[in-house]
Amino acid sequence: MTDSPVLALAKDLISRQSITPEDAGCQEVMIKRLEALGFQVEVMVFEDTTNFWARRGTEAPLFAFAGHTDVVPAGPIEQWHTQPFEPTVIDGHLHGRGAADMKSSLACMVVAVERFVEENPDHKGSIGFLITSDEEGPFINGTVRVVDTLMQRGEHIDMCIVGEPSSTHFTGDVIKNGRRGSITGDLIVLGTQGHVAYPHLATNPVHEAFPALAELANTKWDEGNEFFPPTSFQIPNIHAGTGASNVIPGEMDVQFNLRYSTELSSDDIMRRIHSTLDSYGLNYELNWTLNGDPFLTDKGALLDAVVAAVEDVNHKTPELLTTGGTSDGRFIARMGGEVIELGPVNATIHKVNECVNIAELEKLTDMYQKTLEKLLTK
Amino acid sequence: MTDSPVLALAKDLISRQSITPEDAGCQEVMIKRLEALGFQVEVMVFEDTTNFWARRGTEAPLFAFAGHTDVVPAGPIEQWHTQPFEPTVIDGHLHGRGAADMKSSLACMVVAVERFVEENPDHKGSIGFLITSDEEGPFINGTVRVVDTLMQRGEHIDMCIVGEPSSTHFTGDVIKNGRRGSITGDLIVLGTQGHVAYPHLATNPVHEAFPALAELANTKWDEGNEFFPPTSFQIPNIHAGTGASNVIPGEMDVQFNLRYSTELSSDDIMRRIHSTLDSYGLNYELNWTLNGDPFLTDKGALLDAVVAAVEDVNHKTPELLTTGGTSDGRFIARMGGEVIELGPVNATIHKVNECVNIAELEKLTDMYQKTLEKLLTK
Repeated sequence: MTDSPVLALAKDLISRQSITPEDAGCQEVMIKRLEALGFQVEVMVFEDTTNFWARRGTEAPLFAFAGHTDVVPAGPIEQWHTQPFEPTVIDGHLHGRGAADMKSSLACMVVAVERFVEENPDHKGSIGFLITSDEEGPFINGTVRVVDTLMQRGEHIDMCIVGEPSSTHFTGDVIKNGRRGSITGDLIVLGTQGHVAYPHLATNPVHEAFPALAELANTKWDEGNEFFPPTSFQIPNIHAGTGASNVIPGEMDVQFNLRYSTELSSDDIMRRIHSTLDSYGLNYELNWTLNGDPFLTDKGALLDAVVAAVEDVNHKTPELLTTGGTSDGRFIARMGGEVIELGPVNATIHKVNECVNIAELEKLTDMYQKTLEKLLTK
Repeated sequence: MTDSPVLALAKDLISRQSITPEDAGCQEVMIKRLEALGFQVEVMVFEDTTNFWARRGTEAPLFAFAGHTDVVPAGPIEQWHTQPFEPTVIDGHLHGRGAADMKSSLACMVVAVERFVEENPDHKGSIGFLITSDEEGPFINGTVRVVDTLMQRGEHIDMCIVGEPSSTHFTGDVIKNGRRGSITGDLIVLGTQGHVAYPHLATNPVHEAFPALAELANTKWDEGNEFFPPTSFQIPNIHAGTGASNVIPGEMDVQFNLRYSTELSSDDIMRRIHSTLDSYGLNYELNWTLNGDPFLTDKGALLDAVVAAVEDVNHKTPELLTTGGTSDGRFIARMGGEVIELGPVNATIHKVNECVNIAELEKLTDMYQKTLEKLLTK
């Protein structure tokens, strides 16, 4: 039996060893297919990372698919039942690194667009593809820089589906319609080093910091909202001391991370934490890393279309969730458009024996195609 | 000019490179001198450490000198103005490693006893020497084991002068008549590791521990007393975290150290700390190291005699202090007798260019000799 177009393209992509930031030719495969459909393609190379932006049409609204060709390393090869970069079908599942995260999604997107354009060559608006090869890496030279480039020239994505594996038990049971924000603070509490036998000559930064840190750990930041759990504060790392039991340390390093809802901005958080630290008279240095603002797509044409498309295929309404870690959706949301994530079941991502249900890939292709039909047919 | 007996003996001891636990023949030099005076000498070797116990007489009271022949390493040799193990006189000061801590004290003790015995061959009571070569090391096989041996056979030192450099500006300005206790707790606070994006699935031991640690750091343990400052609690070391900013750590290691007065026992401290930790419902493991109970000699024949001897020589009353780190006095005090520390100025100890004022060595010898006269003449 010949492989379906989606399965064949997914296999082609999985066979390319594109460990971050390598693309290994995946984008070239996609670009050829899109150029054949009349897409204008720009390859954007930033440092070690290859990205491309493709667009068919010049009108608004601009709908785009977003995703990444890179994958995480295979991990312990002896625990794989198959070769990770030799796509293999076992019991109706396609096995290989990237099968679920997210080369199959890319195949579904391309085939969905091919079918849609064949039936609707003069569709409304524009279709885009924003594809990177650094999503699993430091996210410095990937989606964030493509988005910057588009925004600088006034090109804004109005609606975007990110193909991240959003589903839990079957494809389309869960749509991610937002993500929490993430901000990290690296705090150095300064004291005065000394000998424990002469505590009056020293200031122990560990002792000084306890009341403020206890208050931060105990703070209710917000109540969350319909779509987000309450903002949470965690201290993942804390270190002080020379190792010697008779030396009062001169400083303590504390790192904290907040996952925050749309009820707060990163500015709110920074202001409140500085205020708490200052209120205890601490002598400190504090450096912030904003990993990503939260985003939420709680209504609009995109969300309506995707929910309806999933219902058409599954005869079941998807659940809307904002749980889990960060994704490139946070960067695309900066453009001000609607962003949702829809992709396959995430049970095996980043693990050995990563795989995806082949029948569900055909369904995911249908969901993508139906979304295009609902949004861009005249 | 010929060296005085004290200076000659101090030079002999300093010329021997007795870095802990090496004795390098120092004790043999002392033993020969003491045997010539009629001392019964027992060499006690425990593991890598050489010690000796010498006694002249069988009657009570038993007065003893205590000290150590070992020294700390020389440190950066290029910063020394002299060779550290070639005793050198410059401007009335004897330079060399161990000049102040405490080979000169040993020389003073031996010469003081020689002079005393010559004048008082039939003195009252007994004179002892408890000498070790591990005072600067882990204090496992030195004074503590000699004391154990003596106690097991019912031989108790009633009065003891430890020759540690107790003085600040001139010899005899300060007598140490006690030392604080020191106890260390190694605490492991147990939580449940997890991802910061899913805090409800984890328990952060850092957060859990803050209230209890803040209370301990803020506790008033006692008021101290006439001789001791209030007991102090310090956290010299605290560590948690994998280094990753998205992982809630599974445990936190906290080390604390208390320097405590004679108002508290180590049992009091352990009970109170367990009680505080338990009151916050913490899940923890806690291991204790008792570095030494406090001791105090606040009155008695020894203190009276030493104070009077110092006054005789200096025409100035010494200050009684219990400050500073631990010493072997804590082990000798377990026998229940009186213990005080009297020795040279400690300004250069453990540093490069360690030195001692030669004129003051003669005074220290006089102080030791006069103490013997006040206590052991008929």
